[in-house]
Amino acid sequence: MNMRPTSLFPSKPTPTCTALSILALFLLASFYTLRHPHAPRNAAHFHRAFLSSASNATLAAYLRALTLRPHLAGTQPSLDAAHLVRAHFLSLGLETRVARFAPLLSYPVRASLAAHFPNGTSVDLPLTEPRLAPDAVVPYHAYSPSGSAVRALAVFANYGREEDYAALSAIGVEVAGCVAVVRRGALSRGDVVRAAESKGVLAVLMYTEGRTAWSRRGVERGTVMRGVGDPLSPGWAGVEGGEALGLEDEEVSARFPKIPSMPVSAECAEMILASLEGGRAPPEWTETLGFKVRGVGPGPTALNFSYQGEKKVVNIHNVFAVIRGLEEPDRYILLGNHRDAWTYGAVDPNSGTAALLDIARRYALMMHMGWNPRRSIILCSWDAEEFGMIGSTEWVEQNLMTLGSKAVAYLNVDCAVQGPGFFARATPQLDELLIEITKKVKDPDNKEATVYEMWAKADGGDNIQRLSGIDSDYAPFLQYAGIPSVDIYYGKAAGVWGLLALRLADDLILPFNYLSYANQLQGYVDIVINLLEGNISVHPLTLSIQALVSVAKEVELEAEKLSVERMTGELGVLRRRALNDRLMLAERGFLDADGLPYGRWFKHLVYGPSDYRSKISFFPGVAEAIWRSAGMRGGEGRAPIQHEIWRVARAIQRVADVLGGRTL
Amino acid sequence: MNMRPTSLFPSKPTPTCTALSILALFLLASFYTLRHPHAPRNAAHFHRAFLSSASNATLAAYLRALTLRPHLAGTQPSLDAAHLVRAHFLSLGLETRVARFAPLLSYPVRASLAAHFPNGTSVDLPLTEPRLAPDAVVPYHAYSPSGSAVRALAVFANYGREEDYAALSAIGVEVAGCVAVVRRGALSRGDVVRAAESKGVLAVLMYTEGRTAWSRRGVERGTVMRGVGDPLSPGWAGVEGGEALGLEDEEVSARFPKIPSMPVSAECAEMILASLEGGRAPPEWTETLGFKVRGVGPGPTALNFSYQGEKKVVNIHNVFAVIRGLEEPDRYILLGNHRDAWTYGAVDPNSGTAALLDIARRYALMMHMGWNPRRSIILCSWDAEEFGMIGSTEWVEQNLMTLGSKAVAYLNVDCAVQGPGFFARATPQLDELLIEITKKVKDPDNKEATVYEMWAKADGGDNIQRLSGIDSDYAPFLQYAGIPSVDIYYGKAAGVWGLLALRLADDLILPFNYLSYANQLQGYVDIVINLLEGNISVHPLTLSIQALVSVAKEVELEAEKLSVERMTGELGVLRRRALNDRLMLAERGFLDADGLPYGRWFKHLVYGPSDYRSKISFFPGVAEAIWRSAGMRGGEGRAPIQHEIWRVARAIQRVADVLGGRTL
Repeated sequence: MNMRPTSLFPSKPTPTCTALSILALFLLASFYTLRHPHAPRNAAHFHRAFLSSASNATLAAYLRALTLRPHLAGTQPSLDAAHLVRAHFLSLGLETRVARFAPLLSYPVRASLAAHFPNGTSVDLPLTEPRLAPDAVVPYHAYSPSGSAVRALAVFANYGREEDYAALSAIGVEVAGCVAVVRRGALSRGDVVRAAESKGVLAVLMYTEGRTAWSRRGVERGTVMRGVGDPLSPGWAGVEGGEALGLEDEEVSARFPKIPSMPVSAECAEMILASLEGGRAPPEWTETLGFKVRGVGPGPTALNFSYQGEKKVVNIHNVFAVIRGLEEPDRYILLGNHRDAWTYGAVDPNSGTAALLDIARRYALMMHMGWNPRRSIILCSWDAEEFGMIGSTEWVEQNLMTLGSKAVAYLNVDCAVQGPGFFARATPQLDELLIEITKKVKDPDNKEATVYEMWAKADGGDNIQRLSGIDSDYAPFLQYAGIPSVDIYYGKAAGVWGLLALRLADDLILPFNYLSYANQLQGYVDIVINLLEGNISVHPLTLSIQALVSVAKEVELEAEKLSVERMTGELGVLRRRALNDRLMLAERGFLDADGLPYGRWFKHLVYGPSDYRSKISFFPGVAEAIWRSAGMRGGEGRAPIQHEIWRVARAIQRVADVLGGRTL
Repeated sequence: MNMRPTSLFPSKPTPTCTALSILALFLLASFYTLRHPHAPRNAAHFHRAFLSSASNATLAAYLRALTLRPHLAGTQPSLDAAHLVRAHFLSLGLETRVARFAPLLSYPVRASLAAHFPNGTSVDLPLTEPRLAPDAVVPYHAYSPSGSAVRALAVFANYGREEDYAALSAIGVEVAGCVAVVRRGALSRGDVVRAAESKGVLAVLMYTEGRTAWSRRGVERGTVMRGVGDPLSPGWAGVEGGEALGLEDEEVSARFPKIPSMPVSAECAEMILASLEGGRAPPEWTETLGFKVRGVGPGPTALNFSYQGEKKVVNIHNVFAVIRGLEEPDRYILLGNHRDAWTYGAVDPNSGTAALLDIARRYALMMHMGWNPRRSIILCSWDAEEFGMIGSTEWVEQNLMTLGSKAVAYLNVDCAVQGPGFFARATPQLDELLIEITKKVKDPDNKEATVYEMWAKADGGDNIQRLSGIDSDYAPFLQYAGIPSVDIYYGKAAGVWGLLALRLADDLILPFNYLSYANQLQGYVDIVINLLEGNISVHPLTLSIQALVSVAKEVELEAEKLSVERMTGELGVLRRRALNDRLMLAERGFLDADGLPYGRWFKHLVYGPSDYRSKISFFPGVAEAIWRSAGMRGGEGRAPIQHEIWRVARAIQRVADVLGGRTL
C-alpha cells in the first residue's frame, strides 16, 4: 500500500468519507439551527420595511370611502361600513372575523324647542345644524329619556358642576323647575344631567362653545348613559338569544338619567342666554364666555322643550383581522379603533379607521416579504363606541378569561386631534417603549424631524397622560380586564401605532418597564397624602411600592440576561416564556373582584372612574371615599378612606408578587 | 494509483476521514439529544421507585412524634408541631418556608351545665371527657358567643333542621326560650345553631351519637363560624400590621351565631333527654335514637347553662416544602394537609400529616437518585383548619393571582377514615387519573390487590364524590381560586397521594380529561331539570355543555398528537406549553366575580355552599335560588333561578372557550 503524504484534502475522497462529510455538514447545519431556535428573525429589518411603506394616498382613499355616508351604530350604513372594513381585510388575505352583539341602543324620534321672550315674542329654536344631510341623525343625547318642559324658565348653570349650582344658590337663584342651559366642560354629559336632576332641574340644554361662525352652529351629539357596555347585559355579552335584563330592572334604569337633555348649538344657546335677567352672572363665568350675558335667570325667558326618543335592541358588528403569531400564537397584541360615528366620522373616528386599514395593508405587505409576528396581532374595528364603548365592552366581557390569560397589550386610536402634535395616554410600563418608538418614526408633516422631536417641542417633554377616563374603547381592556393599554390621539398615527404593535409582537422579551409604573405610583401617593387628614396612613402604599421597585429592578436584570444569553433548548425557551408571563400578567394585579365604589364592574384600582367631584384622577376608590367623606360628620369618613388605601396597597403588592414570580 | 475495490470500510481510514467521522458521531449524538429535549426523563422509573419506597415504620414514627401532645392552633404546642414539620423538611434537604398569619381565633374560658329535674334534684353535668389531659382544650365550639340560660326548659330538636322544628311545631311544642339538645347530622354546626337562633332558642347543646361506651363519652369539638378564613380580613390575608376589620363590623359579626352553643357527650345528652316529657317524640326520630326517649319537652327538666369564650388574634403558621420543577418551575402541584388538631390529632389530621412527611422523605430519596420534577411540587402543612380553613384560606387569598396563573392542582388529605376502604372526592377532570393511579398502587393492607380493586369491591365501582362542601382545605383552592382539586380520605393515602402529584408534575401533557367534566355537568342538568317549574329553561346549560363536549374531544386529539409527536425545538415546546396552559386554566372559567348568593367570597358556580335547606349539592347559586323561591309568591322566584342558570351556562361556555383556545 502506498503511503500517501498526510494531506487534508486527498485528491479523491472515498465514498465513505464523502458520505460522512455530507452527513457532518448536514448535522452541523441542523445543529446550528437548533442551537439558535430564536435566531434573530430579522424583526428589525421587517419593522424598517413597515415604516417605509407609509402612503398618504392610500390613507386618504380609505378615509374617503369610510366617510361617504353617515354611519350611526345599528343602522344599515353602519353595517355597510363593517362590510367595507371586512372586505379590505379579506382583500389583503388576512384571517377575518365578525362578532355580532345585540345591545340596547337609543335613537331620537322627535324634538322641539321654543323660547318665549318677555316682550311676548316666541321663536322656534333650531335643533339641527344647517344643511344637515337627510340621512344623518338629528342631534340628540343617546339614552336621554323622553320628556318635556312647558313654559319652564330658562336658567344658565355655567358648566353644570356642583360649584356652579352653589354659586347660583349664593345669589338666590332657584333652579328647581327650570330648564338649565349648560356649556360643555370637563364633566361628562351624563354627570351634567345627573347633577341638574339632583337640583330639581326639568331638562338640560348643553352646548359646545365655538370661536368660528361655523363651529358656533355645530351641535355635538353624545351619550348620557352612565358606565360602559350594553345596559341589558352588565358583566356579560349581550347576544341574540342570550340573557337580557328588563328595562324596568333597577340595575338597568340606574344607567340612564331621569330628565331629558339635548345638545344645542352655541348660537342657539346664546339666543337664550342673552335674553336672561335675574341673578347677575358671576364674573368668573362671564370672563370666559364668548358672548355678553347680563343675567343667569331664572327667566324671564321661558322655554317649551320636548324630546321623544326610543331605546331598542339592535345588532352591532365588531370586525377583526387576525395575524397568527408563529412561535406564540396564544399571546395577543390588539390594535383597536371604533368605526361607528354620530354622522360622517371624518375625524372621530374614521381618521383612525383609515390608519387601521393602512396598518393592515402594510402588515400584509410584510407577510408577503416573509414576515410572521412572534405573537398574534389582532386588528379590531369596534361598533357602537359612541353609545358607551359598547362593541368593545361586550366583546371583552365575552372573552374576559381568554384575554386575561393571553392579551399582552391593547393599543387604541379613537380619532385624530385636529391640531398638530402628538398626544398619548398609556399605562406607565409602556412609557419607555412609546418614547423609543416616537424617536424612530418620522413626523409625517416634517420629514426632518421625528415624532418625538415635534412632540417634545410642542409639549416640553415626554408628556404621557394616564387612562383614568372611560371615554374610549381602552376602558374595558384596562379597567375591567387589567390589560396594559395605550391611547394615541395623533393626526397621522399609523406609523407609531403600527410600530408599537410590532415591537410588542416581535420582541423576545416584552418591552415593559415596571420601574416607570412604580415611580408613577409614588407620584400619586405624594399627591394624595396632601388630601388626607392626619390620622389616615399611606404607609401601606409606601411599603408595597417599595416592594414593586425592588422587584422591577430584579426583573430588568433578568430580562437583560435572558434576551442576551443564547439560551438554547427547552429550558431556555421556557425560562423566557415564564418571564414574559410574569411581565404580561403583572397589570392584572391591580384588579380587585369587588370593583370600585363608582361601580362594581370597574375592577382596576389605579385607573378608573369616580364621582366627578373627586379631586384626583387616580386611585378612584380612594378618590371616591375622600369625596364622600366631605359630607360626613366627625371621623365617619376616615375608615372607608383607609380601607380604600389598604385595597390599593394590596393591589400593588399583588403586582409585585406576580412580577417577582416567586410564591414561596 | 491503485484502484481499490470500492469498499465501505477501507482498512486504514485517512486522518481527515477519521476526524470527520468523529465529528459526525459527536454531532449525531448532540443532535439526538437536542431533538429530544423532552426525551423521556425516565419519569416512570422514578415513579416506580417512589411506590417501592413506602415504609410503615417511618409513617408510624412520624405519627407518634406529631401526636405526643395536644396542639391546638395558636398555642405553643402548635408552634412546636410546626417546627417539627419544618425540621423534617430541612433534614431532607428540601427548600422550606414558613408563612405566618394573624387571624382571629377563639378559645373557651369557662362553662357550666346543670340540670334541674322535676323531682327537685339537680345535677352538674360533665362537659369534658373523662381523663382529659390538662393541656388539652376543654370541649367547646369555636366562635360561639358567650352567654347563658337560666332555668331554661330543655327541648329535643332531633338534628335541628327546618323539618325537625316543623315537626315540633306540629305537635304544639314551643321552642322559644328553651335550650335545645340536638344530635349531629348532615348540617354544619353553624347552620344548626343559626336555625335554632331563628326559632328563638336560647342555647344549643350538640351531641354526637355513639355505639360504644367509649364513644358515648366522647365530645366533639368544632367551629360554628360561617364561611372560611379569618373573619377580620375577608378577601385578603390577615397579617400582623395589615388591615383588620373591627369585631363590631357587620361583615365580621355576621360570621358568628348570636346564641351560645356547646358540644356534649351522648351520655350527657341522654341524661337530659331521657328525663323529658311534654310532646311525644315522633317515631321517625326515635327509631334511629340509641336510647329510649318518651317526650321531646319542653321540660320539665330545666337547664342552667353558661359559656364564656374569648376571641383573640393569634399567630398561626403554615409550613411549606418546595421542590422546584426543572423545566416548568412556574407550574405548581400542591399537596396539602392541616396540622392543627383540637386535641391530639391521631386521626384527624395527623395521620395525613404523617403521610405528608413520608411523601417528603420519598421525594427526597428520588431526588438523590437524580430525579427532578418537571413542574414544582409544594408540600403544604396548614394551620388553624379546624377553626374554619384559616391557614389555607389566608395563604390562598394572599397568593390568589399567582396561584390562579400557575397552580395546576391541589391535592388534599385531611385525615384517614377509621374504617377500611378508599374514599375520594375530586373535580371531574381528575377522575380518570385518580382511577389509573389506584390501579397502580398496592393496597397497604392486602398486597395481592391494588387500591382500586379493594375500592371497587367495597364501593361497587369508581365512586368519586364531589367537592361541594367547605369542610377542608380544598375549599379556598377550588371554590375561591378555581384550581382542580382532590380530597382523599384513606387510611394509608401516601402512595396514591404521592403518585397523583408525581403524574401531575411529570406528565408532558397535563392528564386532565374534560369529557368527564362535561358528562358530570350533564348529569347535574338532568337532576336539576326535575326541580324546576315549567317555564324555566335549562337550554343555555345544554348548549354550553355541548360546546364543552365538542372542545374536550378536540383537546383529547390534540393532547395525543402533542405527546406522541417528536415536536422539536422552540415551536414544539411552546405548542405543548400553550395546550397545557389551556388545560390548567380551564377550571378558572367556573369562577364568577360576583360570587354566590350564600356569600360573594365563594366564586365557583358549580361547587360551593348554599343554604342548608337546598335540595342539590351542585350549582350552588341555582340551588339557593330554588330554595329561596319556595317562600315567594307567584312567579317572583322564577327570574332569580333563570338568572343563576344563565350564569352557570356562561361559566361553562367560558371553560369551553379557554379549553378550546381560539378567541377568534
